[in-house]
This record gives sequence, structure tokens and C-alpha cells, in this order.
Amino acid sequence: MIDFTFQNPTKVIFGKDALNHLAEEIKRYGTKVLLVYGGGSVKRIGLYDQVISILNNQKASVWEISGVKPNPRLGLVREGIRLCRENSVELVLAMGGGSAIDTAKAIVNGVKYDGDVWDLFTGKGSNVEVLPLGTIVTLPAAGSEMSNSCVITREEDQCKRGRNTPLNFPKFSILNPEFTYSLPPYQTACGVVDIMAHIMERYFTTVEHVELTDRMAEGALKTVIDNAPLVMNSPEDYDARAEIMWAGCLAHNTLFETGRVGDWASHKLEHELSALYDIAHGAGLAIIFPAWMKYVLSKGNAKKLSQFAVRVLDVKADAGTEEEIAQEGIVRLDAFYRSVGLTTTLHENGIDERDFERMAERAVKMAGGVLGSFYPIRKVDALSIYRLAL
Amino acid sequence: MIDFTFQNPTKVIFGKDALNHLAEEIKRYGTKVLLVYGGGSVKRIGLYDQVISILNNQKASVWEISGVKPNPRLGLVREGIRLCRENSVELVLAMGGGSAIDTAKAIVNGVKYDGDVWDLFTGKGSNVEVLPLGTIVTLPAAGSEMSNSCVITREEDQCKRGRNTPLNFPKFSILNPEFTYSLPPYQTACGVVDIMAHIMERYFTTVEHVELTDRMAEGALKTVIDNAPLVMNSPEDYDARAEIMWAGCLAHNTLFETGRVGDWASHKLEHELSALYDIAHGAGLAIIFPAWMKYVLSKGNAKKLSQFAVRVLDVKADAGTEEEIAQEGIVRLDAFYRSVGLTTTLHENGIDERDFERMAERAVKMAGGVLGSFYPIRKVDALSIYRLAL
Repeated sequence: MIDFTFQNPTKVIFGKDALNHLAEEIKRYGTKVLLVYGGGSVKRIGLYDQVISILNNQKASVWEISGVKPNPRLGLVREGIRLCRENSVELVLAMGGGSAIDTAKAIVNGVKYDGDVWDLFTGKGSNVEVLPLGTIVTLPAAGSEMSNSCVITREEDQCKRGRNTPLNFPKFSILNPEFTYSLPPYQTACGVVDIMAHIMERYFTTVEHVELTDRMAEGALKTVIDNAPLVMNSPEDYDARAEIMWAGCLAHNTLFETGRVGDWASHKLEHELSALYDIAHGAGLAIIFPAWMKYVLSKGNAKKLSQFAVRVLDVKADAGTEEEIAQEGIVRLDAFYRSVGLTTTLHENGIDERDFERMAERAVKMAGGVLGSFYPIRKVDALSIYRLAL
Repeated sequence: MIDFTFQNPTKVIFGKDALNHLAEEIKRYGTKVLLVYGGGSVKRIGLYDQVISILNNQKASVWEISGVKPNPRLGLVREGIRLCRENSVELVLAMGGGSAIDTAKAIVNGVKYDGDVWDLFTGKGSNVEVLPLGTIVTLPAAGSEMSNSCVITREEDQCKRGRNTPLNFPKFSILNPEFTYSLPPYQTACGVVDIMAHIMERYFTTVEHVELTDRMAEGALKTVIDNAPLVMNSPEDYDARAEIMWAGCLAHNTLFETGRVGDWASHKLEHELSALYDIAHGAGLAIIFPAWMKYVLSKGNAKKLSQFAVRVLDVKADAGTEEEIAQEGIVRLDAFYRSVGLTTTLHENGIDERDFERMAERAVKMAGGVLGSFYPIRKVDALSIYRLAL
């Protein structure tokens, strides 16, 4: 185990009654509110109307940024910053999944930074404070509701950048599993993959003696795998939705990375994919993660991969060599992704190798030459992984 | 899963280098510091001198409350409050285990309450703010370093009262597993039992569909059980000490109770024991917990007890009926406690049934007539459990 600091101040308000606590939070942070959301779903499930009604009861002044799309764009962030500044907004309230929340995170940071908000993502600039941020989650996936991370794409060159800072922790997040009942199966499945990836990126570490976090991570992965088929079959299974939603929140709140170094190569390889092809992040991870596992296994990292196979995917501990067990684990993970309706190859998505060079080049360059830590991925390795994903 | 709110703002600074972060925290909270500690061990391991040196480098003014003992007493709390008020103390820094930290928690609350601090424990009074509190942990057990709880004993009538409030969360806690190297085996073992009890009190719930927290709790219990023999045999096994220390911190930080109702009957039955006999809390729990399990199993609660036996203590899932599996789990838990050098009966501690009436009466009365929720314990049940513990 390596030294660490863990602190996560976000207040999670979870359950059927969660939205009824919004009024208290408005009273705490202020009544000049900027809403940030995508569009259709938040209105279709009635959440938008409920929130507006609560805000009206609090005599709040409300501004809106809507139309947030997956892989959220810098343009809307700039628009949100302008609205906050012009109207002295006191609280930004994101409704939706990671895209709405990440847009809101970039806004609350950018408002308190004198220069161009993109500087915060390139490392050119920094801020020390933010506007208060609250979230209402409708898509368990990114875990942004309790995370320190934020990923934004600059439209003009499809450049996707993340920024992790304690300033990104929301003040509060409201999670009602009922808000996820009407998610299309595809989005539910992509969310499940993303949640698992957040855990697995931390799970696959070369740091030894991380037993507590290993076991908690394995428990969270098993929970998601066991409950995913339940929600695919019964979208209004409250308890199964709740397990996935709480797992999604914990998956990315940094608890599972205490005392260890995460990998994140798969995420970065996927970011290049979704930046170029506008494929959903979770769908991309279902393709990249098994390919990455196959590749690192071929390089000799069987021990942790076989532990994963045994403890998470119930491969028998005496089913073969460590490598055979690890291989069976990858087969089962791939089968699980397919069982929730996703594809696990690039070809199935009409993607061939024409952009591999560019993707591998950029992914590795942005990471300073080497991606990940479980196995160091250089450009040649990245190319191999993309090919394994074909 | 039931609705919940989860928030835990404590900053945990963990590892070999952790104490080097103390100076930053002093700068953040102030240089008028009250130290709260027990005595011998903090000085013997050199921690006291290191902390004084850091405080001197920060030009801090330091006052001290020392001599804190297990089952910490109200008298020292009052003394600490007086010192804080007279000297406008800005930060209270506890060094040690739960007793030092709970004393410090009562102090930081009492300073900001106009009446008698005991009112806060009886419910007669309340406060809305506290002095900042930091902790440096030398005994992984109570988990007070990241918990909202605090238990104090009033000397004159041996009345032990707990108070849970978000105000009790320390601002920061410094955990270096090396500080636990010189713990006597008996204290290490008592700590292990206490940590496990904090998890088990939450694990044994009648709330269904709490799979994620069940699995994380099982992982934490397994980690403690696997690492306890390592530290008993090799007190300076850093990694094993680290697993137990981090588990002890998470065990009581309310993560494992999200979405469920805990039980706490065993803790309350044990509180009466240690209040009367001054037996160590962990040693008392090693006696009470198996007795409580036997009793609730006799009342028909086999399902969760057998899940515990299978997932935590590796009883084969096909080893018999649910009840037989549960029974085997209790046998193995008892054997584990004995394997770390503890006793599991009252007789071995020279305690007979003469005070059972009084203990059962008081435990149940303080809980308003019924103890726990996994199985409702009334006075007659409490008496039976104490008898099973003989």
C-alpha cells in the first residue's frame, strides 16, 4: 500500500425521497440558480417540472444551459460562465449524467478564473475557488456526482481533456433510482460498463498489498454484474437500480484508489475513439477494455487478471494456469458486455484501422509518452490494443 | 435499500509520511493547540516528541490534557473545555485511540455549548458548531478518527453515553501504520474485534437488497480476519498493519450503513459490561457478539448469519442447512477471536451472573425498551444473551 490522502466532502442524498431535500440546499447556497441539463429525458420524466416547481417555491431566479450532449463541449461551458457572471449566479445545478455534470463543473471553475476556462484543462491556469455545485443524477455512469474529475471536449479540434481537482466535488448530489427507470437499455448498459471501468482502472494496479480496496472493488463489480441483467429485464426494479446507482457513485469517488496507483490506459485509448467517432463512452469502453486486458495478459500480467477472473467472474481457482484463468475471465467479461446488448469489436461499429495511427499517437502524446501503469503503453502497444479491438 | 444521506468530510492522511502533513494543517486551523492523549505509549513510540517538535516549528502555543484512559471520563472533558476557553484554543489535537479522540470530540463540542457538556449526551442541550479537531491515530479500533460518534462515561454513576452528530467528524486524521508497531498483542486483538464489530453491527440488518454494502462489508471483514494473524506474528508487518488501520477507519465512517438500519444491540450490551467491570471494549465484544449471534439464530434469523458464514468465514455453501451453516460461522468467529488471544466467555474473566439483572435493565432502558433491530432485544432477551456469554 502506498501513502494517500482521502477526502470527499460531497453530500449524497439518496432514495425515493431525495428530491424533497433540494429546497434545504437552495436555502443553504442561494436562490440565483443556473440549471444545466441535456434536454429530452429530464423533461420527459418530469424532473424538470419538479425542480422548477421547487425553485419557484423558493422564489429562486433561474437561468438555463440546455442541450448538453455526450462528450460535452467547451462552447456551452463558455456560455454558462457568461450567464453566471452577468447574473451573479450563486448555485449551479446540473441535472442528468456525466455530460451535464461535467459541463457544470467546468462552469463553476471557470467563473472563478480570470482567463479562458480551457487554460484550466491544459494546465496553463489555475483557480482556488468555485461556485457551489449541486447535481441531480438521472444516469448512473460517469460517477461525476461524487468525483473530483471533469472531462470537456474542445469542438474545433475534437481535443478532449480531463482535469481532476478537489474543487470539482459537488456540494451535494441528489440520487433517486426512480429517475433512471426510463433510461433506454442501451444507455443503461453503457452506464454499467462505465461504472465497471472506473473500478477496474483502479483495480488493475501493480501496487501490492491493497487487499481491502481490492475486496471492496471486487464486491462493487460483482454487485453491478449481478444487478445489470435485473434492470435490463425489469427497468423499474427499484432495488437493482439503486445498487447500480450507488455503485456508480462510489466507483469514481476515489475510495477505490486509496493506497494504490490506477491505470487509466483504457479510458485514454477510449477517449480518442469517442472524440473521433462520437461513440458513447461506455460503448467504447466495452470494446477497448477486453482488448487492453488481452494485451497486458500477453505481456505477462496474469496474476491480478486471474484474481479478477476468480473473485469477480467466478472462474474456478483451479480451472487451469493463472494465464488460462485470466483468459477465461476476459472471455466472461466480453460475454457479460454482450449480454447487456453491447458490441465488443470496432468492426461491429463500422470502424476500421484507418485512424489508429492518429489515435495512438495522440493518446500516448497526451499522456507524456506512456499511458497507464499496470503495463506501460507506448504508441506501438496502443496500436496493438486498437488492432485487438477490431 | 432505504433512503439515506451520506457525507463524511474528514480528510484522511495515511501512510509512512503522514505526520509530515501536520504542519500544513496547523497553518490551516491555528497555532493555539490543545493536545489530548493518554500517556505512556504516545511518548514511548516517540510520537509525542515528534508532534511537539512540529508544533514548536510552527511557533504554536500548546496546552495538554493527558492521562486519558479507556472508557474516557467526563471529568477530563470538563478540564479540557476549561483550558480551551481560558486560552482561546483554536485546534484540538488528539493522539491515541478512541478514548483520546472521543475525549477531544466531547471537548470541541462542549467549548461551543453554553451549558454543561453532559447535556449534549443526554439530549438536554445542543450545539451548532465545534472547535476544529485533528487526530493522530495510534490504535486502530474505535474508528473515531473518521466517525460521527463519541462515547463518554460519567464517573459518578458509571453512566456511558454516546452521541452521534456530523459535528463529531474530525477535520483531519493522520494515520501511520508504523505508529501501531509497538501495540501489545492484547490491544491489537481488542482493536481487531472492535473494528469487526463496527462492521457487523451494520451488516446484520433486516433491510433487504443492500448488496453493495453487504459485499464491501464482507470484503472488509475478510481483510481484517486475514491480516490479524500476520500482525500478531509480525508486529512490524507494515502492509498488514496498514490493511487493519484503513479497515478500522472505514468500519465506522458510516459508509457501511448506507441504505440500511444497523443493529448495535451487542455494542450496548457490551457497554454495560465495560462500564461495570472496566473490561476493554474489544475484549467485551469478543464475548458478547458470539452470544448475541447464538441468541438471534435461536430466534430464526439464519439467512443473514449463514451468508456471513459463507462469504466471510468460508463455510461451504452446501455444508448443511442454513441454520447449520450459520452455527458453523459462529463457531469459526469464536475460534478466530481465541486465535488472536482473546477469551470468549465471561467466566474466563471472573464475571458471573450477579449483575446481569442490573446490566440488562439498564441497557434496555437506555435504548427506550428495545435494543437493536435485527432482532428486538427486550430485558428477557438481554438476560439470555448475557447467560449465553457465561
